[in-house]
Amino acid sequence: MKQVVLAHALTARPVATDFQLVEAPEPACPAGGVVVAVRHISLDPYVGSRLRGRHMGEAPPVPGRDTIPGAVVGTVVESRAAGIATGALVHAMEGGWAERVALPAGHFRVIAPGAEPLSAHVGVLGMPGLTAWAGIVQLARVGPGDVVLVDAAAGPVGGTVGQIARLKGAARVVGIAGGPEKCALVTGRYGFDACVDYKAEGWQAALDAALAGSPPTVHFENVSTAMATLALTRLAPYGRMVLCGLVDQYHADAPPPGLPAGLIVGKRAQLSGLVVYDFYDRWDAFLAEVQPLVASGQLAFAEDVAHGLAEAPALFERLMEGRHVGKALVTLD
Amino acid sequence: MKQVVLAHALTARPVATDFQLVEAPEPACPAGGVVVAVRHISLDPYVGSRLRGRHMGEAPPVPGRDTIPGAVVGTVVESRAAGIATGALVHAMEGGWAERVALPAGHFRVIAPGAEPLSAHVGVLGMPGLTAWAGIVQLARVGPGDVVLVDAAAGPVGGTVGQIARLKGAARVVGIAGGPEKCALVTGRYGFDACVDYKAEGWQAALDAALAGSPPTVHFENVSTAMATLALTRLAPYGRMVLCGLVDQYHADAPPPGLPAGLIVGKRAQLSGLVVYDFYDRWDAFLAEVQPLVASGQLAFAEDVAHGLAEAPALFERLMEGRHVGKALVTLD
Repeated sequence: MKQVVLAHALTARPVATDFQLVEAPEPACPAGGVVVAVRHISLDPYVGSRLRGRHMGEAPPVPGRDTIPGAVVGTVVESRAAGIATGALVHAMEGGWAERVALPAGHFRVIAPGAEPLSAHVGVLGMPGLTAWAGIVQLARVGPGDVVLVDAAAGPVGGTVGQIARLKGAARVVGIAGGPEKCALVTGRYGFDACVDYKAEGWQAALDAALAGSPPTVHFENVSTAMATLALTRLAPYGRMVLCGLVDQYHADAPPPGLPAGLIVGKRAQLSGLVVYDFYDRWDAFLAEVQPLVASGQLAFAEDVAHGLAEAPALFERLMEGRHVGKALVTLD
Repeated sequence: MKQVVLAHALTARPVATDFQLVEAPEPACPAGGVVVAVRHISLDPYVGSRLRGRHMGEAPPVPGRDTIPGAVVGTVVESRAAGIATGALVHAMEGGWAERVALPAGHFRVIAPGAEPLSAHVGVLGMPGLTAWAGIVQLARVGPGDVVLVDAAAGPVGGTVGQIARLKGAARVVGIAGGPEKCALVTGRYGFDACVDYKAEGWQAALDAALAGSPPTVHFENVSTAMATLALTRLAPYGRMVLCGLVDQYHADAPPPGLPAGLIVGKRAQLSGLVVYDFYDRWDAFLAEVQPLVASGQLAFAEDVAHGLAEAPALFERLMEGRHVGKALVTLD
């Protein structure tokens, strides 16, 4: 079978030529586990950080040997797990860029059949969706009357944050994204009230106009300390801020300036750090709430798809540069 | 009557010679208000900031004319307020360094008789106590099992934070203060489990020893962004942090480095900005809970007292330098 590995150890933000498609032995099925034929692979910004050994203390993959990590969905082709037959669909956080992966007991969950496409389980119904739900529902407890601001709004986290906020009764949902194509997705398919292009001249004034005199009561930070600081200046008194992705730090050589504590005090802001790992045990509750919304079309999503493992490195490079639109994934279907 | 005014406009942290004791006309009693013979005046760090026009957008007092602001307790000597007779005891946030002050309707509250000394109403039962209660009870919701860290622990806010935490069942209460005299107060009269002298060599190792392997689940920040950042590095996962006083910024010429957002995420920390003004309408609930604790001696406090208006500037200078011990106040009794 085929898999993708690192061509060499990384010293900077990964680019396509850092990866190599190689032949690998078929994985053996662990006791209590399964072997899965991979169908969709999630490409996520944090993996770029992990490839450099900068993510949660995890060791980077060994070049030439270890599969590039990534969440996957796939079909069970061999099972030593009680009650799980071949043909079952499963999701695993610790999958990889490979045609087949072995998943030990406890490291996957079975996907119940639903109307939505299977690929949604690496996006709006996968870790990105869980992240959005954890932040906006569990931490920020968004509700009627809230004005919600979220950046990286075209992505699967930001886009889901805004849409869930709207479904929970938010009065106004404003996104920040990079470029007109992403902004069109955010206000079009995702239905935000407004989206501001942070790459455009005068965008901070445009943000104020988009907020229409209603300072955000909730901000979901998905990009950087600088963006969080800007959001703090706009935040309503007693506003809630979820700090989640700080993508700009994944490959920075020095830590960025911090958040201004005086502004947190002055705004009486409530900040919450979010690590999605903490919410894995609530995946069922998340799916129970969000899967019907996806199936019915109330919660929209967008995908940026690479076809086949050979295309994965190029899409990953685009993801690292923010040039993807929607959820980046590799399909082997 | 006598009052204290600024001798000149301030351009740096105030010192004793910036103040002047002058004669002033007797204040006129406003319709619906009272005139009070001042008995105790609170000296607070934020006033130093306010004197320079750096506090909450409030204009600084005009040199030679405006009374130095400060919370007071005193006895009503003239009343145009319904139901308030001369002889009543009142507390006012907008008092001043003067023998008598006029208080408009709605700008004072009557103090119910209690066993504690009247001066406590500018300290543990005044704004500092309310600040502590708001942060540790209302925002951090401290309870059994919590490990609580607080700096400026010898002061009326920090000392009350730790003692209330203990009374609410905290498993361990650790203070940070400057110098052995303050630390002795914190572990002695206030009964903290430990207090670390941040002016001593190797104090961060001493802090780790004082925490005894139990990372703080709650931190109350009363001093600076740098101290809050240090506390973040020690904070338990999911720890709560109340950001309140940032005294070091009151007179700094440049904003300090900010709080590391990545650490907030990594710790899943919950940060809350606290401005005590927001809790003025809960003063009765605060007093109902805390006054009996003071009266019974369960909640201890310490005072650093200047006798007479002429001594106020020197004590204020010591307060600005952190050389006071306990609640700084001026008594005219």
